[in-house]
Formats: sequence, C-alpha cells, structure tokens
Amino acid sequence: MTSAVLLQPRSGSTLTERLARSAVATEGAGIATSDVPDWLAAERLACRTRVRQIPFADLDGWSFRAGSGNLRHRSGRFFTVEGLHVVRPDVGMEWQQPIIVQTEIGILGILAKEFDGTLHFLMQAKVEPGNPNLVQLSPTVQATRSNYTKAHGGTAVKYLEHFLDPPPGGVLTDVLQSEHGAWFYRKRNRNMIVEITGEVPADERFRWLTLGQLGRLLQQDNVVNMDSRTVLASAPLAYPEHGAIRSDADVASWFTGQRASHEVRAHRIPLAQVAGWCRDEHRIYRPDQRYFRVLAVAVEGANREVSSWSQPLIEPVAPGVVGFAYRTFAGVPHVLVHARVEGGFLDTVELAPTVQCVPANYTQASAAQRPPFLDLMLEAPPERVRYAATHSEEGGRFRNAESRYLVVATDEAATPTEAPPGYHWVTPGQLSWLAGHSRYVNVQARTLLAILQTRAAEIGQDS
Amino acid sequence: MTSAVLLQPRSGSTLTERLARSAVATEGAGIATSDVPDWLAAERLACRTRVRQIPFADLDGWSFRAGSGNLRHRSGRFFTVEGLHVVRPDVGMEWQQPIIVQTEIGILGILAKEFDGTLHFLMQAKVEPGNPNLVQLSPTVQATRSNYTKAHGGTAVKYLEHFLDPPPGGVLTDVLQSEHGAWFYRKRNRNMIVEITGEVPADERFRWLTLGQLGRLLQQDNVVNMDSRTVLASAPLAYPEHGAIRSDADVASWFTGQRASHEVRAHRIPLAQVAGWCRDEHRIYRPDQRYFRVLAVAVEGANREVSSWSQPLIEPVAPGVVGFAYRTFAGVPHVLVHARVEGGFLDTVELAPTVQCVPANYTQASAAQRPPFLDLMLEAPPERVRYAATHSEEGGRFRNAESRYLVVATDEAATPTEAPPGYHWVTPGQLSWLAGHSRYVNVQARTLLAILQTRAAEIGQDS
Repeated sequence: MTSAVLLQPRSGSTLTERLARSAVATEGAGIATSDVPDWLAAERLACRTRVRQIPFADLDGWSFRAGSGNLRHRSGRFFTVEGLHVVRPDVGMEWQQPIIVQTEIGILGILAKEFDGTLHFLMQAKVEPGNPNLVQLSPTVQATRSNYTKAHGGTAVKYLEHFLDPPPGGVLTDVLQSEHGAWFYRKRNRNMIVEITGEVPADERFRWLTLGQLGRLLQQDNVVNMDSRTVLASAPLAYPEHGAIRSDADVASWFTGQRASHEVRAHRIPLAQVAGWCRDEHRIYRPDQRYFRVLAVAVEGANREVSSWSQPLIEPVAPGVVGFAYRTFAGVPHVLVHARVEGGFLDTVELAPTVQCVPANYTQASAAQRPPFLDLMLEAPPERVRYAATHSEEGGRFRNAESRYLVVATDEAATPTEAPPGYHWVTPGQLSWLAGHSRYVNVQARTLLAILQTRAAEIGQDS
Repeated sequence: MTSAVLLQPRSGSTLTERLARSAVATEGAGIATSDVPDWLAAERLACRTRVRQIPFADLDGWSFRAGSGNLRHRSGRFFTVEGLHVVRPDVGMEWQQPIIVQTEIGILGILAKEFDGTLHFLMQAKVEPGNPNLVQLSPTVQATRSNYTKAHGGTAVKYLEHFLDPPPGGVLTDVLQSEHGAWFYRKRNRNMIVEITGEVPADERFRWLTLGQLGRLLQQDNVVNMDSRTVLASAPLAYPEHGAIRSDADVASWFTGQRASHEVRAHRIPLAQVAGWCRDEHRIYRPDQRYFRVLAVAVEGANREVSSWSQPLIEPVAPGVVGFAYRTFAGVPHVLVHARVEGGFLDTVELAPTVQCVPANYTQASAAQRPPFLDLMLEAPPERVRYAATHSEEGGRFRNAESRYLVVATDEAATPTEAPPGYHWVTPGQLSWLAGHSRYVNVQARTLLAILQTRAAEIGQDS
C-alpha cells in the first residue's frame, strides 16, 4: 500500500544558486542602493523619536524587586536584569556580573521574494532606542513573544503570519541562534528566512533589497542592524571551495574537543548580591569603569507597536573591536575562529571571531594579558584591511554598543597555518555550514559571516 | 604570498561508500558473527564478576550528604544523585524526581580500520554491573574523565590515546550527544569514531567487527550495549533517498518551532527535598511504585580498571517499549519522530521515537492518558514487525533498564501522512544527518537509528 505522496528533494542546488545570484546583484527591482541612507534619514526625521536617560525611579512599570534587587517589569514579561555567577574551574577563574534574562524565544524573520528572477528581502526601517542613529534596517519581523501576544498592548506585528505558519518549501532557513553571552543569559532567537510567491505589498517603512544591496549597505556604518546581520548569516549560501585546511569532520571534531575541554558553571544570583558592582539612581556600574553599565531610558514618539515607553538598557563603557584574520591557503580563503567561553552561553563555547573585545578594558593590562591578535587588528596597514565598518548591537537591549568590525589579511608570521590552541582556520563555507545549526557560531562571528555572505568584504586569492 | 598547504576535501563520498560496504558485510576478517555470543558467554564466565545489591550504608566512599541528602562520592567525582524540579508552564505540569548529575564529559570511542578493503570496528567485551547479562559489546573506549585521569586509581584506559589526539583525516565522527533526559541532568558524551591505518593489535577482550556484523548482533537481545549503539548512530552513512515528505530545511524548521514552543524550567534541588519520593535503607523510591528507584550495588571481580567497587544505580520499575512507526512514501522509507520534552535535556526537546515509555507506569491511566501509538506497538501483528529485540541502557548507571525496541510498519489509518502535532515523518537519511550534530536525536532514537544504519532492520518498499 504505497501512498500517492509527492516527495520533495531533501535539499537542492537551485536555492544556493538563487542566493548567489542575489548576492552579486548590487542593485535590485526596488529602491536604489544609494537611496537607502536617505530613506533611513527621512524615517529618522519623520519618526520624531526622542530617547533620554532617566533615573531608575522614573521607569514606568519597571522596578527593583525587594530582596533580590532584580530589575523587572510588573507584568513579569519582556526581560529581567539579574545577577550571574560564573565559575571556570578549568582555568581557575570566577566572576559575577549583571545579566539580562529573557527566556522567551523571539522571531527574527526576513521575508524573501523573487523580482525579475532575483531574490529580494523585505527590510524594515526600524527605530530602536539603543541605536546610536535610532533607525536602521531590521528584518521584516523582529518580535518577542511578548510583542506578538500583545503584552505591549500595542498593534499587531506586520507580516508575522508568514513566520508563524510558513508554507512547505517556503522556509530557506530556520535556526535558533544564541546572542551575546557576555550580556544575555542563554538567550536565543529564531532566525528565519521565508520565501513567498504570492503578492505581498511592501508596507511603508519596508523595502525589498537584494543580498548584494545589503552587502553594499553593510560597508557603511550603522545601517544594517544586528538582527538583520544574524539572519543573513544563517542563509544557506554555497561557496565554491575546492577544499579546506581541515575537512568538515576534523573541524567538527576540533569544536567538540573544545566544548568538552572547558568547564563553565554559571548560575543566576540576585542582582543585589553581585560583587564588584554598584548601583546609584542612574546606573548599575563598576567603580573601575570596566565592561558596561545598566541604565534606564524613556522613549517617546517611536513608530512601534507602542509609541512611548521606558526600559532598562545595557551600555558598554567603550567601543569594541571584532575581527577576522584571514588568509588564503592554496587559493581558498580561510578565517581564524576562536573557541570562546562566554558566561551566558547555554553550552560553554561557541566559535567567535579572531578578536572580540573592548580594548578600553585592557588599558591596565600587561602585554601577556592583552587579547591575542588585538594589535594585529588595531595596527593593520590599510592595504591589509579588506573590510572595516562600525556596527551596533541590538538596539532594543543595548545602547551605543558599537564595535569596529574588521577583516584583515594576515600572514604566516602573524597567524601561522598551525593555529594556536583554541583557534582554528575554517573556510567561509564551513562557517556557513555550522551557522545552519544552533550554538556553533556566536553573534559577533555571525555579523562577520553576513559580511562574507553578502560580499561586503571581497576576500580572494590575494594573501 | 600563498602558503604551500595541501587542502583536504571538505567531505567525501568515499567514506560513505566505505561505511555502506561495511554495513552489507555480515561477516568480517576476524571473529565469525555466530561466534560472538559464545565469546561473550566465555568472557562472562571468565570475569567471575558478582554484583549484589547492598544497603546504602555499605557503600564504600559514597554517602548522603548532611543537609541536602545528595548522594555523592567522597572524592567529589564520578557523579551525584540529586533532586530535580521541572516546571512546564506551557502545559501546566510540574514534578520533582531524583536525577543523576554528571557534569564531566566522557568519551565513547570506536576505533575503525580497514581489513581486506572493508571497515572494521574494534569492539570490547565489557562488564557493566547494571547489565542484565553483565557482559556486552562496548565501544573500544568508554571512559569518563575520572577514568582516564585515574580518579579510580585504576589502570590506564586502552586505546585512549587515539581519541585524545586523533590524526587529521582520521576522525569519521565526533559529536556531543545527550543521554537519558529522564535520568540524567544535562549529561552528554563525546561520540567518536576514529580510523587508524597503522598496526593496532586487538587486545584480549577486543574484536574487530564490520557494521554488518554489528547489525546481525543487534538482532539479538542484550549483545550490543547502549554506548556502542549511540556511537554507531553517529556514523555518517549516506542513504539512497530520492526525496522526502519534507525537505531538510522544512524538517529543521519544524524542529526549531517545536523547540521554541516548549518552555521547560528545570533546576536542581536537594535530594532530601524531592516531593513524592521516599528513602529507606536500600532504596529511594515512589510509594506508588512508578518510574524508577535508586539503589546500591557492590561489584567484585570485574575485568575493569579496578576489580571491585560499590556504587549507586538507577533501576526502572519495569521494562520499556521504544519504537518507530515506519511507512514508505513514494518508495522512500520514513519513520515517525516525536519532539519530546525530557526534564534533563539541556534544551527542552529532542527527537524521540514514535513511542518511548514504560507501559507499567500507565496501568491506571485512562485511554486518553496513554501514550499515543503505544497500542500500535504492543498489538502489532507479527508480519508488520520489521524489528524487535530487547536492549538495555548504560549498565554503568542503570540496572536492568531493558526496553523492547521495535520498528513497526504502519498505514495511513494508524499514522496519517499529515502527522499529529509534535510528530513528524523523517527519512533515515534525515535522521542520520541530524544525529551528526548535538541535541537533535535522543539516545533512544539513536538506538533505533543504529539499527537502521547497520541494517539490523531491513525496511524497504513494503508498506
């Protein structure tokens, strides 16, 4: 008794070819690439949003809970700021810090559609209070469960239905990805790209863009927001690589070994008990001015589900530096990834960029204490810098969390073929393969991967 | 400046072909398949091991800690028995239970080598105190970190060096896999297969077997132990599938949606505080006799790193039933997986068999409370049973934890093409693809996958 069921191919080269075609299209069927910044500037003006720092006491609906001191909303939703105690017995380190706890899983979803035979992606001009320039390109849908179950008491999330119930064959990618393990406790979001074939009008504040257009826009500072970058990193692009320094199985084995060899014990503690941090009317901070502070803002006039609200944000003390060292081996580009422990990761380590740090945190550090390869990034001669732009992290939780993202060509002397312990050379194709599954590639490395996927950084056979 | 580096293919069809060749070889270059049971019986006799239940008070080095009541070894190593409180707000359920906490990551490693052009795998006749028949085939190496860092004060682990420092290109698979989420708190082990080309003498108690031989042995009760089964499930076999009901991307999306839609809050509590469980001199148990008990055993005369010791074990109250419903669609076999919540999983759900339960726990249950598809397994007519054998779970932690493993051909009436919520049809190839990464496929489903990988169950175009 065989059922008359039409089978689908398990996967196909058609999709990867279509994505590759979109990646080389630096203009699309809609808005001209060069008009996007002006459009965003106009949106910035039109939204008339004002964000100002306020004392914690002026937060509406948020308060420090008696006893624990945890900062939470009276609804019990959105997120809380609590304490985290991290112990790393394997290296004899431990520390405590404030951390954002947000257990509900949000959707970061980009709608895709073919115009004139080329895949376009529906991007939104979205206000986020922590963005240094307020308005950036966000995914079509960027919604926490509180958003779409209306905890905000706001309006419905546009286009959400395409992601809650995607049509068979329409999903291009759908993967739970981690976010900043230094600031979030085990946060993950659903990164989705869903292709539609029917008519979908682009609402005001939405534009259809190709991958290549997004790549051009990623060459500019603070245009493409973090949520867009992580979704783009999850797109299943193919890479014409004829080999790699190590096979996929060896890369996976190295990663498994790294994960197995680190022991990280992280548990939540009351915010009031976090050692080394102080709280005053305006901020939770370290007296030595390192790392970050927690503060509160009031937002007015945003074009969002609700037009005014107040909330806590995390603000790093200084800009970060995030970069890949890259080399080509036998004509194939490779980037140097780092198996990095972050206290908020669900599972010990993920693959991070070669360098990921805030240099200001190391001004007092000895040369031995400085992050490896940092000076290679900071002192790279211009002809070796294949990519450099400033991007900010999620503006709904972080304020002015800017980092300089870099791709720097290096050589055998600076970055040997035999990578040091904890580091490994992988091809962009291998990184993209791993980013198709949860918890291999951290959010900063995914920004750099998005830069490679969209050809914002052209790396080739030049090293 | 291009480095003269020889690149590796990222992956190759050669390996999958070699594995497939080994899977059809039901005899190998070493011991005859039919001689393996006799060999294991001889080992059983020769080891002269005796296991007897003892009161907790007679445990050597293990005691209930004052206050928490947690059961632990004085060295602080091996594992502890603690309490777990699980809350599932999405379905309004919560419960408490004893749970094994074992944070260190062990290695389950099988050494592979070609003889006469066919891959063979080095299997060990190993005594485990909880095995109903004491001696079963285990991986080449089955070692906790305590084992190989000599916390036992025992002898060195044979062949371990091949897994601690595998040669480039020698790793066939290396993935962290979860174990029983009902009994372990976030346990995972490293599942490895490493191929060697040099001479490796098979020590006494070790034999080289093909995948096909292991498949034949998996048709018998309690011959191939759980650790072997999970490693075999992780082998990267290829399947000649010309399609599937849903593409890989759709399967991944369904899984992501399932993981995102379940909320599971599990935290450890003191064993002394676990509600609904009692402790007497010999056991920790539920007065209603459901689920399992914790007890203690003394082991003497085992052919292990140390020859006698005592330890706690978990003993289920009754045998389990674990099975896949399978159907072919347009000529391609599919099995019905279940996105299952287990309290000890690191991340909410993993893919489980169609049925996974201990029927005795449901004798008082109404029809609606009985696990879906259970009766389909229990009442399957013989001609629909494509596979049935009894296997036990890890004998180092579980005593007589036997389940009937089944593969049952079903039809549209019993198991519709449109699977019910929480269930999905996947091909063996899709399941094998997912088992190549962490935390997609649970340990029971991996036993069934090992049965498919080694062709212990021949499923084809007959449904």
